[in-house]
Amino acid sequence: MKIAVLGYGTVGSGVVSVIDTNKEEIKSSAGEGVEVKYILDLRSFPNDPHERDVVHDFDIIVNDKEIRLIAETMGGTEPARTFTERALQKGISVVTSNKELVDAHGAELIEIAKANNCSYLFEASVGGGIPILHTLHTALKSERIESVTGILNGTTNYILTKMEAVGADFADVLKKAQELGYAEKDPTADVEGHDACRKIAILASLISNRRVRHEQVMTEGITKITRDDFIYARGMQRRIKLLGHAEKTKDGSLRVIVAPFLIPLTHPLSGVDDVFNAVEVTSNMLGVSMYYGRGAGKEATASAVVADICEIARNQGAYVERSLTKEEASLVDAAEQTYKFFVRTAAKDKDAMITALSDGGIAYEDLRRQFDSGITSEEAYVTAPVSYGTLQKALQNAPAPLSLIRLLDI
Amino acid sequence: MKIAVLGYGTVGSGVVSVIDTNKEEIKSSAGEGVEVKYILDLRSFPNDPHERDVVHDFDIIVNDKEIRLIAETMGGTEPARTFTERALQKGISVVTSNKELVDAHGAELIEIAKANNCSYLFEASVGGGIPILHTLHTALKSERIESVTGILNGTTNYILTKMEAVGADFADVLKKAQELGYAEKDPTADVEGHDACRKIAILASLISNRRVRHEQVMTEGITKITRDDFIYARGMQRRIKLLGHAEKTKDGSLRVIVAPFLIPLTHPLSGVDDVFNAVEVTSNMLGVSMYYGRGAGKEATASAVVADICEIARNQGAYVERSLTKEEASLVDAAEQTYKFFVRTAAKDKDAMITALSDGGIAYEDLRRQFDSGITSEEAYVTAPVSYGTLQKALQNAPAPLSLIRLLDI
Repeated sequence: MKIAVLGYGTVGSGVVSVIDTNKEEIKSSAGEGVEVKYILDLRSFPNDPHERDVVHDFDIIVNDKEIRLIAETMGGTEPARTFTERALQKGISVVTSNKELVDAHGAELIEIAKANNCSYLFEASVGGGIPILHTLHTALKSERIESVTGILNGTTNYILTKMEAVGADFADVLKKAQELGYAEKDPTADVEGHDACRKIAILASLISNRRVRHEQVMTEGITKITRDDFIYARGMQRRIKLLGHAEKTKDGSLRVIVAPFLIPLTHPLSGVDDVFNAVEVTSNMLGVSMYYGRGAGKEATASAVVADICEIARNQGAYVERSLTKEEASLVDAAEQTYKFFVRTAAKDKDAMITALSDGGIAYEDLRRQFDSGITSEEAYVTAPVSYGTLQKALQNAPAPLSLIRLLDI
Repeated sequence: MKIAVLGYGTVGSGVVSVIDTNKEEIKSSAGEGVEVKYILDLRSFPNDPHERDVVHDFDIIVNDKEIRLIAETMGGTEPARTFTERALQKGISVVTSNKELVDAHGAELIEIAKANNCSYLFEASVGGGIPILHTLHTALKSERIESVTGILNGTTNYILTKMEAVGADFADVLKKAQELGYAEKDPTADVEGHDACRKIAILASLISNRRVRHEQVMTEGITKITRDDFIYARGMQRRIKLLGHAEKTKDGSLRVIVAPFLIPLTHPLSGVDDVFNAVEVTSNMLGVSMYYGRGAGKEATASAVVADICEIARNQGAYVERSLTKEEASLVDAAEQTYKFFVRTAAKDKDAMITALSDGGIAYEDLRRQFDSGITSEEAYVTAPVSYGTLQKALQNAPAPLSLIRLLDI
């Protein structure tokens, strides 16, 4: 099977490298050898072993009748979208690691693929090292999925892990992560939760068979988490993780959120550290299952792209299903999502905080009764389950809390 | 698709229940509805909703041209083997939860399936709630698998979790587990590691494409683990887990073992508690990935059987590959498998133990230098990496140690 790779950056060169390295395994998986015939990039790559495969014009690729599959690893919506559409319209399957494109136009692209008896697969767009989309569409397909909860971003998980381990503040760990190449120069997409948001939007869309747009998802990043929060977390026997969570409610709508959560040490996601990602799925017969792997890194993402290539090869000339649809999902409003909240306040604001909670009708526990944080200048509480809207309204009458973090209960 | 279920016990009735409950999901996964036409059992089931489907004669099933698939949930090698062979010879695919049969005759049965253009799938025989075999044959198929390490038995993991949490001894927790139905009256197969051994033998066979017989696998159970071992484990920042481990060596042979291991708290398997199972896979491009789910329970196992049914339905009239072969694996002798060992001895035997280790040329660390166990009547050491044979030989000259547990290092 001759293929083309669009974009010879980190992921694209990873894909070529995996294909070169695991030739035999890929042949056995795909049922035939997979060969990179073209690499599309604006740049040239003198002395690269694939130097002669590099082309600068997409037309060469899409007009070559030998090309049966394209791996799109460019990122961004254009020209990736146009290239993908043109390929699919010619019956050339496309696999991608491009979450922006899948989030924005996945449903349309799948329709085009289906109409042209080819496939559009995007495992690498959600969790590089975790075959979660494949699993949802095969082994878990006969299950009724109730919820999906994931640590979906390697950079933020690395930062939170280090903040906890070293007792350092966000800004210091971020700087270190940037030096080590674990965080980008402009870390906004990661630390503000935008990357995780796109991924949970795709997962939520898949489990609900409805379209969830990332813009609709309540998203909170980790920039407000401080080193002191981890001291309380330890006392509560919890850890702080940035989670994407999507859950079907009884009335058929969806609760979707990205936010830092305090999760119990006994929760299967609590042990997921550093750049690792994991997705926990709850379904009606199997119960809880979890899928764990490297969330970042050239090879892990590339391996997911290659697994999609092999799946398409195994199902030649047939549409491989991925259930993204255009029908809009009905989402529970962020203000109506109910959780227990961890609330920290300066000791001097204690009375005002207690009054605000009480006036808002929000029950709470004083954490001082459970453990000694050693931080005498503060008070900390855990509320009873309360909607975010109700809590916000109550807190309007109090000084801004030092922290407000949701609890994930099991 | 009309199917038959052989054996209406725990797993068989679970399969029927999953098919009844998830009718729509199964239809969507299989591409067609799945209907139970026959249930083979020696007993009758008056007032059961499927009472009229129960038959006592396998010939009725195998001679019915409508039957395209059989779910064998009887257990044991006979008559399961004969029934499976007869079905496959007629081109009827078989899915099973029967690890004894897969371990003993899997390769032959797969050959018969292949020759008759049907399939023999056995996801439920390894990890009920974990789609690990499916993943190894699809998403991970283009990877070079280096090792597989798993918590493969729910009963022993439950017992170890409770021993640690409560500080109780093996016998007491076992008794409690039996009362709760988490352990069988005769717990030998679980607590002596035989069940985990059959599962790692199947996994080892799959990753090596060679036949690993369970009789060849060095197997140690958890009956000798005591409550004191957990005190040292805590000091070492480790937990004790019964692991099945299979690893390819550089010369192409396999290291396979089932034994309790001291694993670091940072290891992804260390958070797997109670009846949950998990399998960690290391492969050349993806690195470490892990698959986690309920290891026991009617529905989890049944769900895995149903997932196999759907996979066969999706690939109608085609052989679905599972790579068990007849060619014998070359295994590293148990005596030559090298690990660090945790060694406990009575304080009075300290000198004899130290002399035995030193005379055997085995370096060791005194754990007393690392933490205070609080147990003054004992001494505890961790050896440098040493082969089991060398250690055993050295210990012949010392009083029997109170514990000897391998360390899993990452």
